[in-house]
Amino acid sequence: MAEAVRHDKTARQLRLLSDALDSGRLGPVRRLVNTLAPAEIGNLLESLPPDKRMVVWGLVDPEDDGEVLVHVGDEVRESLIADMDQDELVAAASDLDIDDLADLVEDLPDAVIDELLRSMDRDNRERLEQVLSYPEDTAGRLMNPDVVTVRADTTVDVVLRFLRLRGELPDHTDHLYVVNRRHQLIGWVALQDLVTRDPGTPINRLMDDELESLHVDASAEQVARQFSDNDWVSAPVVDDGNVLLGRITVDDVVDIIREQAEHQALGAAGLDEDEDLFSPIRRAVRGRVVWLGINLLTAFLAAGVIGQFDATIEQIVALAVLMPIVAGIGGNAAVQVLTLMVRGIALGQVGASNAGILLWKELRVALINGLLIGGLVGLVALLWFRSWSLSLVIAAALVINFCSAALAGVLLPLLLKRMRVDPAVAGTVVVTAVTDVIGFFSFLGLATVILLH
Amino acid sequence: MAEAVRHDKTARQLRLLSDALDSGRLGPVRRLVNTLAPAEIGNLLESLPPDKRMVVWGLVDPEDDGEVLVHVGDEVRESLIADMDQDELVAAASDLDIDDLADLVEDLPDAVIDELLRSMDRDNRERLEQVLSYPEDTAGRLMNPDVVTVRADTTVDVVLRFLRLRGELPDHTDHLYVVNRRHQLIGWVALQDLVTRDPGTPINRLMDDELESLHVDASAEQVARQFSDNDWVSAPVVDDGNVLLGRITVDDVVDIIREQAEHQALGAAGLDEDEDLFSPIRRAVRGRVVWLGINLLTAFLAAGVIGQFDATIEQIVALAVLMPIVAGIGGNAAVQVLTLMVRGIALGQVGASNAGILLWKELRVALINGLLIGGLVGLVALLWFRSWSLSLVIAAALVINFCSAALAGVLLPLLLKRMRVDPAVAGTVVVTAVTDVIGFFSFLGLATVILLH
Repeated sequence: MAEAVRHDKTARQLRLLSDALDSGRLGPVRRLVNTLAPAEIGNLLESLPPDKRMVVWGLVDPEDDGEVLVHVGDEVRESLIADMDQDELVAAASDLDIDDLADLVEDLPDAVIDELLRSMDRDNRERLEQVLSYPEDTAGRLMNPDVVTVRADTTVDVVLRFLRLRGELPDHTDHLYVVNRRHQLIGWVALQDLVTRDPGTPINRLMDDELESLHVDASAEQVARQFSDNDWVSAPVVDDGNVLLGRITVDDVVDIIREQAEHQALGAAGLDEDEDLFSPIRRAVRGRVVWLGINLLTAFLAAGVIGQFDATIEQIVALAVLMPIVAGIGGNAAVQVLTLMVRGIALGQVGASNAGILLWKELRVALINGLLIGGLVGLVALLWFRSWSLSLVIAAALVINFCSAALAGVLLPLLLKRMRVDPAVAGTVVVTAVTDVIGFFSFLGLATVILLH
Repeated sequence: MAEAVRHDKTARQLRLLSDALDSGRLGPVRRLVNTLAPAEIGNLLESLPPDKRMVVWGLVDPEDDGEVLVHVGDEVRESLIADMDQDELVAAASDLDIDDLADLVEDLPDAVIDELLRSMDRDNRERLEQVLSYPEDTAGRLMNPDVVTVRADTTVDVVLRFLRLRGELPDHTDHLYVVNRRHQLIGWVALQDLVTRDPGTPINRLMDDELESLHVDASAEQVARQFSDNDWVSAPVVDDGNVLLGRITVDDVVDIIREQAEHQALGAAGLDEDEDLFSPIRRAVRGRVVWLGINLLTAFLAAGVIGQFDATIEQIVALAVLMPIVAGIGGNAAVQVLTLMVRGIALGQVGASNAGILLWKELRVALINGLLIGGLVGLVALLWFRSWSLSLVIAAALVINFCSAALAGVLLPLLLKRMRVDPAVAGTVVVTAVTDVIGFFSFLGLATVILLH
């Protein structure tokens, strides 16, 4: 019985492994690595600099190679594949389930794919081709066509005898699917019921025929939401005619949810999810410089606004000192509203039917926050620069900018979504561009009108 | 057989429901609501403004009340509970599993808790008290003590007869746990094996005794990682003496992963995860104004730096125009590095053993990006203000700020983590404060030295 996990396992393994690697004793490293699950090995490989990564990769049990490749990011995967010869790759890939293989196959060299298809039996080859015929990030691509089906007009006892003859079930089988002659799904039976009910019970009495199924075209996001709403361990995938095509299991859904969260967190900073800790310098520069360039454009836009008021700033330098406060706090307020909206949109909670009410609520929050923060900043400005009118100008500019932050925060993500741009990724740049421009314009504009005339 | 889900279900339901509510016909609303799973009803309630929310809540099948309460955020939960009388609450809570009940119980009025404890049998009361004795967000609090155990010295046939006598199994039972006389965990048996193996097979031949278990003190985060690394559907929770205390199931883990992602996304914008779309204005203001205040402090710090150079700005107004570019782009670069680090830390991929290598890599990326972006900005500044020396100053300031962004982005999250502050929440404020201050200081400082002397 292995020790119960209490502490941060990967970090500890990483330290032990790093020490062992540094000492050059590969025996202990091999033993350490091969106590880990493939996903943990993948995580470990991603945390190592390329040279050490290759040493450790060479020590992984070849039986785990395929599973590890499935569990690492695209970039690390490429580097690991480049390190393997054709026979190793074919062996690694042929250990995988169809759904995992479908995920991996596009990264394999053509020669390996040919060899792999030749080595598969006809059933499996057809299944793989079927899965690959669906677009990425749909239920069709995520499913495993290997399902166990039974007929409704039989009994628990007969099914149990059938299962004993069949032998091992696909991973995470918690239900058997009940289909008719045309392979249309008519219900499912829980394994739990098979082991607790009387052997003579007919299947059509045990069967749940109210289950929702996943359409083969459903998006990965929709699949994830259905799973978590229904607490499923596995769910059937059907086509337009309700014909059973395969099943999706919760372990893949957990990966989808993790990837979506990562995509959102990294996307908001303009990183793509394949950039890992030790991406090559050239790759990291290329990945990030585009985003910085986009932000640079909005920064120049803001600078252009300031440039319109250079005569005003020349006369009142205090404006230059206080300027970044108006734009900065406005940006923070906008990002808060945006973040709530992005979550609401992702959960399907925001739509045309409640956008108006939300906007009205956010405008009232913005007005109060604007008066509070604007008043505070005005007070500090008064003490600092001893000017009532400057103090009034910055307070007013902050109230205006809070309101524009609420408008931008509510409306822009809805607009981006309608334009099929992911608001989680593009939202921050767009709303902060709005608050920068409006912040500088209202502050410097009010100052020009009130302080100079 | 229900229709396969293809499109965005919640959004469509929301529209239909909103129309039905507006028309005042509550019959169709009730029918619509009660086709949904409890989690979907929860999601729907969160998307409705408070007045409509209460109307819909009154139409939910009382059987689902408990599950719905488990699936909504704290704030919506409070409002729903406030709308129920004591009998309804006791009825709702007594339908729940122990782990869900433990999650809900602290939000219930004391009178309801007393009544509930009185209505429970002794076993369940003791189980609930046991679960509540563990701190929130630990395996002990997440587990359900209701587990099915078997002995090793028996056979498949005997176990199947035992299960038929016992009847229904706890939700998501995919394994039975094998314990010794002292209730210590010695292995587990898959339900799949029970239905596929010969009835005479001894349990100790089927049993997997290499499984990892979860320690009762493990954090929710650790539990989630173990589940996704090992593709578990359920896992046993044990104490220091390896005594089996309960089990955690994947549906709760899916919720944990979703909540962690939300916590990270909302925390980075200074929102707490309980703020929902329709939080009362006062609540929303209070929740956000603290964060804005913290950001205001850093904005004043930056303004203070600019204030040191007012004499320089008075002479060269172009500095005020270009100033926000240096700070803004530096902030973007820092957030990129920070985001990669936060992910690495969350995955346990970053530690003392590789921080140095990472810092060195990020400094090189920063130097290249700094030269590229700095060169570009310098060129634009040259064309705009026709000054070689101003162009040189801003380019140099950008290179300096990119390097400080890399330093802050790598080192501050490690420091915050050591101080037990969540870098996903506090990171952005801290690193952008650094890049604001260093950006303004290096740009205006260099300008003072080079342009004025």
